[in-house]
Amino acid sequence: MMKAIVKHHRGEGAELREVPVPSIGDQDVLIKVKATSICGTDVHIYNWDDWSASRVNPPYVFGHEFAGEVVEVGSKVTNYKKGDYVSAETHLVCGHCPQCLTGKFHICENTEIIGVDTQGCFAEYVALPEQNLWRNPADMPTDIASVQEPMGNAVHTVLNGDVAGKSVAIIGCGPIGLMAVGVAKAAGASQVLAFDLNPYRLELAEKMGATALINSAEENPVEKANALTNGHGVDVVCEMSGHPVAMDQGFKMITNGGRMSILSLPTQPVKIDVTNDIVFKGIEVQGITGRKMYETWQQVSRLLQSKQVDLSPMITHHLPLEDFEKGFELMNQGKCGKVVLHP
Amino acid sequence: MMKAIVKHHRGEGAELREVPVPSIGDQDVLIKVKATSICGTDVHIYNWDDWSASRVNPPYVFGHEFAGEVVEVGSKVTNYKKGDYVSAETHLVCGHCPQCLTGKFHICENTEIIGVDTQGCFAEYVALPEQNLWRNPADMPTDIASVQEPMGNAVHTVLNGDVAGKSVAIIGCGPIGLMAVGVAKAAGASQVLAFDLNPYRLELAEKMGATALINSAEENPVEKANALTNGHGVDVVCEMSGHPVAMDQGFKMITNGGRMSILSLPTQPVKIDVTNDIVFKGIEVQGITGRKMYETWQQVSRLLQSKQVDLSPMITHHLPLEDFEKGFELMNQGKCGKVVLHP
Amino acid sequence: MMKAIVKHHRGEGAELREVPVPSIGDQDVLIKVKATSICGTDVHIYNWDDWSASRVNPPYVFGHEFAGEVVEVGSKVTNYKKGDYVSAETHLVCGHCPQCLTGKFHICENTEIIGVDTQGCFAEYVALPEQNLWRNPADMPTDIASVQEPMGNAVHTVLNGDVAGKSVAIIGCGPIGLMAVGVAKAAGASQVLAFDLNPYRLELAEKMGATALINSAEENPVEKANALTNGHGVDVVCEMSGHPVAMDQGFKMITNGGRMSILSLPTQPVKIDVTNDIVFKGIEVQGITGRKMYETWQQVSRLLQSKQVDLSPMITHHLPLEDFEKGFELMNQGKCGKVVLHP
Amino acid sequence: MMKAIVKHHRGEGAELREVPVPSIGDQDVLIKVKATSICGTDVHIYNWDDWSASRVNPPYVFGHEFAGEVVEVGSKVTNYKKGDYVSAETHLVCGHCPQCLTGKFHICENTEIIGVDTQGCFAEYVALPEQNLWRNPADMPTDIASVQEPMGNAVHTVLNGDVAGKSVAIIGCGPIGLMAVGVAKAAGASQVLAFDLNPYRLELAEKMGATALINSAEENPVEKANALTNGHGVDVVCEMSGHPVAMDQGFKMITNGGRMSILSLPTQPVKIDVTNDIVFKGIEVQGITGRKMYETWQQVSRLLQSKQVDLSPMITHHLPLEDFEKGFELMNQGKCGKVVLHP
Repeated sequence: MMKAIVKHHRGEGAELREVPVPSIGDQDVLIKVKATSICGTDVHIYNWDDWSASRVNPPYVFGHEFAGEVVEVGSKVTNYKKGDYVSAETHLVCGHCPQCLTGKFHICENTEIIGVDTQGCFAEYVALPEQNLWRNPADMPTDIASVQEPMGNAVHTVLNGDVAGKSVAIIGCGPIGLMAVGVAKAAGASQVLAFDLNPYRLELAEKMGATALINSAEENPVEKANALTNGHGVDVVCEMSGHPVAMDQGFKMITNGGRMSILSLPTQPVKIDVTNDIVFKGIEVQGITGRKMYETWQQVSRLLQSKQVDLSPMITHHLPLEDFEKGFELMNQGKCGKVVLHP
Repeated sequence: MMKAIVKHHRGEGAELREVPVPSIGDQDVLIKVKATSICGTDVHIYNWDDWSASRVNPPYVFGHEFAGEVVEVGSKVTNYKKGDYVSAETHLVCGHCPQCLTGKFHICENTEIIGVDTQGCFAEYVALPEQNLWRNPADMPTDIASVQEPMGNAVHTVLNGDVAGKSVAIIGCGPIGLMAVGVAKAAGASQVLAFDLNPYRLELAEKMGATALINSAEENPVEKANALTNGHGVDVVCEMSGHPVAMDQGFKMITNGGRMSILSLPTQPVKIDVTNDIVFKGIEVQGITGRKMYETWQQVSRLLQSKQVDLSPMITHHLPLEDFEKGFELMNQGKCGKVVLHP
Repeated sequence: MMKAIVKHHRGEGAELREVPVPSIGDQDVLIKVKATSICGTDVHIYNWDDWSASRVNPPYVFGHEFAGEVVEVGSKVTNYKKGDYVSAETHLVCGHCPQCLTGKFHICENTEIIGVDTQGCFAEYVALPEQNLWRNPADMPTDIASVQEPMGNAVHTVLNGDVAGKSVAIIGCGPIGLMAVGVAKAAGASQVLAFDLNPYRLELAEKMGATALINSAEENPVEKANALTNGHGVDVVCEMSGHPVAMDQGFKMITNGGRMSILSLPTQPVKIDVTNDIVFKGIEVQGITGRKMYETWQQVSRLLQSKQVDLSPMITHHLPLEDFEKGFELMNQGKCGKVVLHP
Repeated sequence: MMKAIVKHHRGEGAELREVPVPSIGDQDVLIKVKATSICGTDVHIYNWDDWSASRVNPPYVFGHEFAGEVVEVGSKVTNYKKGDYVSAETHLVCGHCPQCLTGKFHICENTEIIGVDTQGCFAEYVALPEQNLWRNPADMPTDIASVQEPMGNAVHTVLNGDVAGKSVAIIGCGPIGLMAVGVAKAAGASQVLAFDLNPYRLELAEKMGATALINSAEENPVEKANALTNGHGVDVVCEMSGHPVAMDQGFKMITNGGRMSILSLPTQPVKIDVTNDIVFKGIEVQGITGRKMYETWQQVSRLLQSKQVDLSPMITHHLPLEDFEKGFELMNQGKCGKVVLHP
């Protein structure tokens, strides 16, 4: 038996329970979890919003970001062995849809997500297919290794086009936005404009390397962005807020020929001035989901190992697994960067 | 003096008038117009819609697509001489904004458009800066040479990403959509799905090489597109209708990782399901305006010279300049492909 | 037992023998071969040149291009069943080197090749891992389906950059060069210049769509290419000859900023005028090997199904498996396009 | 009259002379030179090697890197005025060849180079066409502004592909190589391996941010590169030495699918193992010349302004114009980074 945070019913909250250690198949490994971090998705499930009500099936163990040690391997596992230090990609992909066949695994038509559609890692142990593992360098701290998965979202978003010598706006400074600030700076952005309504998060953005902090509640974000770019607008906008107003501001502050990379998930359709904000400006709008498997993981791992990106300022809280409720509370209040649980 | 079609007042219609032959500056050339074709933009100006009321200043000569012969050159003109056979790019660009400085002239911050912001070519003669000319091969018919400019829009849209071996949907089969069908076919598309409400235009689309014709009034376009692509959706959507419903259908029929290139100009903001249609699908949305100067012109000229694209099926009407009213009537009724006027 | 062409000894030639039908593992399938075609690599092995002496281990069944029907599947095979009509990618890749992890399977550090490093398909049956199979459309003729693998080389080479509206030179009109002519034409090249010393092959190039045929023994290839491009040179050179002189001519005929894609394998290091032919011209030189897995296969399949490319003119010979010696003789004499064997 | 360094005869050396201040045409500006730096090309001209003997026509003023103040403008100059602080692109391009027409001005077929084919800037004043000017921010030091031109070569080379999270080898740590080290680091490279034979320059490379210094006279560069990359090889090689042996080492140390960007100008054709080092590895080889006009200048200016790149460690010597001979001596001895002259 092991301790695990179980989404126990179709409603708010979750429970710490004793559940059986998962068994593994031929091509799976069993991992002892050393650190596991809370994602915005986990908060949706904890809070039980419309999306989670329509997607997940309690009772089950949730959570999908982690780092840990391999303690058992299936008979057909060839590339990992007991003692290996690993994290994991959370998209389980089919391998035979047109997207998988052309190397775009991250947008597989038949994607399942660990900890959403399957048993997750808010637990002492997690069982996963060998194919989804990512090997960590021995000297990477477990909390950093755990947050590679969301950092992959930031890297996928920011590096999905040129950044060096460009002005980059990060709209929304939640954990992934904060990571995006660090990635843009590390990749040579000449300006990194951080936008949020929350002063606590803007402060973290500054620690991550933002060159300008704009509290959109207090200043006009579009005017500010123009003022900082000689009236031309920013080259790259990374939309990470999901708010229609902020997204519209992003479209308005972008320069002709610029790039808008959207990672956020607005809950409703968004009105977009296609003619003036997309067509006449000749911009490119990119939908970003998941992480390129495993190109993004390679970038993440190397940016961290080389210290080009230092995530320590934005990992603000460490808690024992048992104190998960405090972690979710911090997340709901926006009074944290990343929260890491230790089983 | 010369004959010219003058947008004479702030209201519907236009007048054939005698006006002075334009004089030229140091760096300009004077061109005798052999053929000039009617663009959708000209129809807006003729009909005097909101956009034209806010943009153009009657009285002036409109029109911007043409082919003709150089009959006089300014003293500083170095690259053209009397007798040269030319057409012209219609964007007049500043040369020193960030876009111009980085080679993206077609999205110059300070663009002016010939025949919209300056005197146009619905006339016996037109004066233009040397810098905007494009040299035509001697054996290119004048009507074909005249429609290179809108074909540039089609080429810019279709070839703004890979096409060979892909399924391509052309939504909206006006003249540029029809050209886009031909370009997609010539560039190796494995399927070219043409969508329109107008059976006359769908027939022209078939002549241009469409592999499937979908009348969106009679069939469900999304279901049809899925049926034709084994349920996966199309790889590339070229949005040329400007209708919010058609645009939404375009987003729905696109496959994960696909490309949506928008050339059309919806008159109102459009509601877009960003989360499901852009982000989760990981697609790219491109705003397309003008023609790359002059990369697109080179592609256009060569696709025509090599007969890889044959525009003759979609140039449906030839009229003397004097009969321009008939031309605009045909355009307003959608009973034509391209209409060419001959001064 | 089954009939198979066995490379029986470390020397010239091969033998038709009766050998056991291969057995399959959990994740393999057994395929009844309907058509199998001879590749240049097979000719090297047959002739027993230096390369094959250093690489292959007789006795074994060689051959790697085929189309056939699945007749048996391993217990863990999920995506194929008895009766499926398939061909196969010939690179067996490791899945965990940096190249595999970043989706560049075709340049896996640990590649093995079917029919070179493993048992091949010049036989009545072949056993292969499920992962390497490619599903064929029911109405694709078996000879066409068999030559998809080398057509993949042609597609990978030609489509590794823009082609529409460009001039493309194919240097060396062996089977893959001939396919490249067809692919370039289908993808919208405005000119396709075919170069070879062999008049028979130049005739086939014309049938595949070449717009100019240059016998490099009779005309100066560089002068001819310049004459055909107004003195500017060609945009794209596909080097498929492997001859240092022809390769040098390719470098000399390319325009500033052009693309040189090399699929051929010169037997010795080649002297290249890096300063004048690469740096000052600002060109890009690409090494091309294998096929993108499986993006290239998708392109191949669709270009064939859509009839954008018609390979029938270059499949010149059909022989029963027993007459393989005649096939190799034709290949050695250059008196054929593609030779297909039927077990 | 003004002081100028004149290449006075067809032989070694140069002379400080009094020459007339240049006069300007309609579209030119006259600039008072504040700082001018010595390029390797200037050293070739000073030393009078084969290349300079075949290209330049003494007597004339050489030099092409500078920063200065506009003191007079021609009557048609629209974008600059007296007092503006500028540097200049040194390629004078034609504007109407296929390369210029498609925005690839830096590889114009008819390029002339300032200070090589025309009068240069080793002088108190230089006259240049408005079109070639680049505006500097007021607070950029003149020595930094002067070396933007060669930094453009470094930026063009390093940023001609992805760098963030990759391993980058800089082969040859002359001034441009040193700048390339700084650019690679600023753009997020996880490793920057600097190779040279000269310990003085390797020390400067370390100051510019190199993560590993390899003296190719003392260590095997290929083995070292492999050891530093877990045996896989480096992702990007920037060849800046021009030595055939070093270039070959570059090809050998590159990983499958890697990028080799060559800025150097070997004096003789180079033997390249095309089969093993280009084709089987599936790498891309890029010839790099000049700077993208003016995309590269924008990147340079912003990387400097944002302090993402700090060039101060590699600008090692400041001299009055009169002491140019000492500057050339330092360059010939390799005992300097960049040498800046002040008229």
